[in-house]
Amino acid sequence: MVNDVLRDLLDGRWADLRRTSRELVGTLEPPPVLDLEAQRALVFEQLGLLAKGGHPLTGFPAEYGGADDVGGSVVAFEVLGFGDLSLMIKAGVQWGLFGGAVQALGTKVHHDEYLPAIMNLDLPGCFAMTETGHGSDVQHLRTTATYDPTTEEFVVHTPDAMARKDYIGNAARDGRVAVVFAQLVTGGEEHGVHALVVPLRDGDGQVLPGVSIEDCGHKAGLNGVDNGRITFDHVRVPRVALLDRYGSVAADGTYSSPVEGDARRFFTMLGTLVRGRISVAGGAGSATKKALALAVRYGETRRQFTRPDGSEVVVLDYLAHQRRLLPALATSYALHFAQEELVSALHDVTDDRARREVESRAAGLKAVSTWHATATIQTCREACGGAGYLAENLLPQLKADTDVFTTFEGDNTVLLQLVAKGLLTSYRDHVGDLDQLGMVRFVADQFVGAVIERTAARSIIARLVGGSGDGLLERGWQVRQFEFRETHVLEGLARRLRRAGTGEQDPFETFNNAQDHVLHAARAHIDRVVLEAFVAAVDRCPDPETATLLDQVCDLYALSVIEADRAWFLEHGRLTPDRSKDVSRAVNELCGQLRPHARELVDAFDVPESWLAAPITRPAS
Amino acid sequence: MVNDVLRDLLDGRWADLRRTSRELVGTLEPPPVLDLEAQRALVFEQLGLLAKGGHPLTGFPAEYGGADDVGGSVVAFEVLGFGDLSLMIKAGVQWGLFGGAVQALGTKVHHDEYLPAIMNLDLPGCFAMTETGHGSDVQHLRTTATYDPTTEEFVVHTPDAMARKDYIGNAARDGRVAVVFAQLVTGGEEHGVHALVVPLRDGDGQVLPGVSIEDCGHKAGLNGVDNGRITFDHVRVPRVALLDRYGSVAADGTYSSPVEGDARRFFTMLGTLVRGRISVAGGAGSATKKALALAVRYGETRRQFTRPDGSEVVVLDYLAHQRRLLPALATSYALHFAQEELVSALHDVTDDRARREVESRAAGLKAVSTWHATATIQTCREACGGAGYLAENLLPQLKADTDVFTTFEGDNTVLLQLVAKGLLTSYRDHVGDLDQLGMVRFVADQFVGAVIERTAARSIIARLVGGSGDGLLERGWQVRQFEFRETHVLEGLARRLRRAGTGEQDPFETFNNAQDHVLHAARAHIDRVVLEAFVAAVDRCPDPETATLLDQVCDLYALSVIEADRAWFLEHGRLTPDRSKDVSRAVNELCGQLRPHARELVDAFDVPESWLAAPITRPAS
Repeated sequence: MVNDVLRDLLDGRWADLRRTSRELVGTLEPPPVLDLEAQRALVFEQLGLLAKGGHPLTGFPAEYGGADDVGGSVVAFEVLGFGDLSLMIKAGVQWGLFGGAVQALGTKVHHDEYLPAIMNLDLPGCFAMTETGHGSDVQHLRTTATYDPTTEEFVVHTPDAMARKDYIGNAARDGRVAVVFAQLVTGGEEHGVHALVVPLRDGDGQVLPGVSIEDCGHKAGLNGVDNGRITFDHVRVPRVALLDRYGSVAADGTYSSPVEGDARRFFTMLGTLVRGRISVAGGAGSATKKALALAVRYGETRRQFTRPDGSEVVVLDYLAHQRRLLPALATSYALHFAQEELVSALHDVTDDRARREVESRAAGLKAVSTWHATATIQTCREACGGAGYLAENLLPQLKADTDVFTTFEGDNTVLLQLVAKGLLTSYRDHVGDLDQLGMVRFVADQFVGAVIERTAARSIIARLVGGSGDGLLERGWQVRQFEFRETHVLEGLARRLRRAGTGEQDPFETFNNAQDHVLHAARAHIDRVVLEAFVAAVDRCPDPETATLLDQVCDLYALSVIEADRAWFLEHGRLTPDRSKDVSRAVNELCGQLRPHARELVDAFDVPESWLAAPITRPAS
Repeated sequence: MVNDVLRDLLDGRWADLRRTSRELVGTLEPPPVLDLEAQRALVFEQLGLLAKGGHPLTGFPAEYGGADDVGGSVVAFEVLGFGDLSLMIKAGVQWGLFGGAVQALGTKVHHDEYLPAIMNLDLPGCFAMTETGHGSDVQHLRTTATYDPTTEEFVVHTPDAMARKDYIGNAARDGRVAVVFAQLVTGGEEHGVHALVVPLRDGDGQVLPGVSIEDCGHKAGLNGVDNGRITFDHVRVPRVALLDRYGSVAADGTYSSPVEGDARRFFTMLGTLVRGRISVAGGAGSATKKALALAVRYGETRRQFTRPDGSEVVVLDYLAHQRRLLPALATSYALHFAQEELVSALHDVTDDRARREVESRAAGLKAVSTWHATATIQTCREACGGAGYLAENLLPQLKADTDVFTTFEGDNTVLLQLVAKGLLTSYRDHVGDLDQLGMVRFVADQFVGAVIERTAARSIIARLVGGSGDGLLERGWQVRQFEFRETHVLEGLARRLRRAGTGEQDPFETFNNAQDHVLHAARAHIDRVVLEAFVAAVDRCPDPETATLLDQVCDLYALSVIEADRAWFLEHGRLTPDRSKDVSRAVNELCGQLRPHARELVDAFDVPESWLAAPITRPAS
């Protein structure tokens, strides 16, 4: 029996879309183990089913038959995460990255030419940004697009092996064209990274002259996605191939752009692609929910070792088992609500500063959500013992497929540093825009103090923080701990950079020596944003009994975050030793209290049953 | 250039065997991605090469052509961990588990009949202990072996689906016989779990009447090992099929045993199989070393993002990257030396109490080493970004293959509880032998206080502990912290159990409420044993310069353990807040100091180059 109130609360603003998307995913089922080509073929076929089922329409413009629903497109992607993750990523490559780049970086001529065929899958394509030598640092990628005014063409070229496009989805098998990111050169002058549409294969699937494509081969997971390496040998494309919303080249080679500065233009372009990052966080969340649903169902039926009376103990009755699964489950709830807030913020964003704040939050939530996915799915696998290692029980594929989430669409460690930069500069500019030297100077000159900007439930949070109760289960106390940690860590970091910035130290050394501090600042910030989203969700829960349950889940989230970092709170005088031990005790107690509700909590995720149909969830007896 | 001193120190007591085993492994190379049957066939073929190469001889008795070298057999298995882990596990099933059970639980008649054919692989076999319903709690498994005196046969039977043998290696394809663990019944009386040799397939590989075998199919990894499920339908085997070292049945059905009590007999039998657990810890160590070697090589050449002067930064120069890899590397050193000590202790063990101490340490080190493997290989994968996700770079297979180590050969969470029981009872009896009620009573009556029993370098440790220096880099201070934590946590646990034991509380609740405390006690104990082994290794290092380097690695190990649990030290007044922050700073500094030696440290593991031959270790430029 699903708790409808809980499910509807989780479904939130895009409830209808979630329901129909779940139905669409529920018509599919886990594929058998297949060889590489068969798996790719199956996923491509299912991609066609998604196209027919209307999945891609959500995010595209109404004038091309779409729904103009940016937030909805992220939500629809997230729901795909309940199904085959290869299909989810393949859809993300085709409609999110490739289609999204044409939409965001191109102009009407590109939209007219490409969007209909992208949406109905007549034109499978690639998003060719990453190179072998530059993955995180895409600003320095080295493919060139040199304008030749005599023929009014761009010459796209890979100067050496490290500049080849690498790990490009849709490249090895299906892609007909690619949006290629390259350093634009015209009249002998470089203008930074721009994107062009470059054909890869003809209508028969033959690779075109000047293009070489290598298959990346087997990967740890996501083998239904055909990643490849693309090398260009002086490939000529017409002038119109340049996606010219943020920079164009006239017939005579004159460059112009509405955005000043190569770096700023680059980060403006990247910013339009923030949706991909948010989508990955959502997909990771769905995969985590599925793993938790499997592990909780197993934990509720599996018995091992006997009580003194001879009866066998259900494993979820063990404290250690609860400790593994229930704080992770609470965190999945927290991240779900934070994701929902972020998708709404993306959907509604209007001004530049808010856009930068969304970019920063997207970076942080992507890092936190994907690390949570990797850790939790691993925990769920272990919590199912040997059974969790068998392919038939679905956890191996989940683990293998999600593993790359921590490093693609932005390496998590790099992303958290972007978050910290955004905080230090109060989103003054695009988060990637300041180099180390610029950062140190900026902080030395302008940082006055950390400011808590609440992203959700502003009035409730203000009231909670204003309270004086300091019981561990007082939400106000919990929020104050989160806020104190955020501001204290950030201000300490700023002082440290400023001190170093006024001295002789190399800015690289300054930044590098503080790198663990930087990561901690980002993490503390995201934790607080996540808690706020959870508090807001509890507040809008319409049913008192469900709200009480959710309140406990929120307690478990808040206290397990504090427990995990309690050394910091002890070091900074915010927890006494006795109280710190009380936090651990409270987490234990909450685990015991929530244990009877574990099944209800995972059932509310409403993962389609066809994707939970594993022997492990229906044990022989 | 390998540092020979370091390599020889790591090679230790079985240096010659390690070298020849590495040479044997070095003749092989990573297999391509194959389908299930092809992978199993390849592994079986390579198992034959190992047999021809003399690998299995080490551990078997001299009278059958072996070398009677128990410790050596564990070391030889460990070295296989540099190669294909499917092959390692397949070898472990055939010669360690199956062959080891015949050797340890059988008598001369069984040795004569089976050992030669086991060693030369004429008789592939299974170790059929785990059942679908009972994995960790094997004492309660439910397959029966009922003696029929009219025919002088045992009837082996699977009463229901949960009692089928499950996850049994060698069962799905190659096994001709199985050592089957079953509840022995004779004359209507149960005598607990015993082992019998039961034929599974005839000479043509056809499954015999009464036996049904199901293939477990694809697993997350180790797909070269053919795991299966075995069901017995009243299968009759002769009386001699019983491996009767610890219990025999006369022709008339009379049962006799040299060990009193079913439970004690069972744990005595299990104890003879401790080698398997130690072997898994060793194999996990080798896999971890390989992952670190790959990640450090990549980290030393990969560049990303620029310094203010425009040069690109080698990623291992980033503090965050060092933080991920170097404490893990230091821990791998520590665990290596602890493993070496344990193998020596196993090899030399004579009395029962020492044997129980070895069993306990084996359980603890297996848990710590395999969790370290899972976490570190994951970290290495992430540290290699997208490249680490490609099969060609070897990390995916390493991850997938080692994942099950945390839950097989004893679930880690269960194993740590055995360690704590051993500590609480001072190894009074076999660690599994006391149930919850017995434990609570025993502790209430007899526990007088935690005793630190040093397992290595006793005199050096005593001298260090006697010192008064309290600098963070003073080894004496570090050891005192480890010892204090161990005794304090254990004594607190004993007080807690005793208090509950004298009250009315259900012993299950008593134990369960303290489960996180139990796990912490075990962990603290194992950490201290590991540190001691490392201290001893530094002490016996013959070259002063290498000893200085190793000393720093040991500092990094000790301080990163303290840092990870610094909340506990703060809570218990053993670290002031300022000093706690100093610990983190010292870890950062040690990372910086060891960074130039990272390559030297992984090279000393001497992983055969054929197993590191990945594009990632020879980047294009």
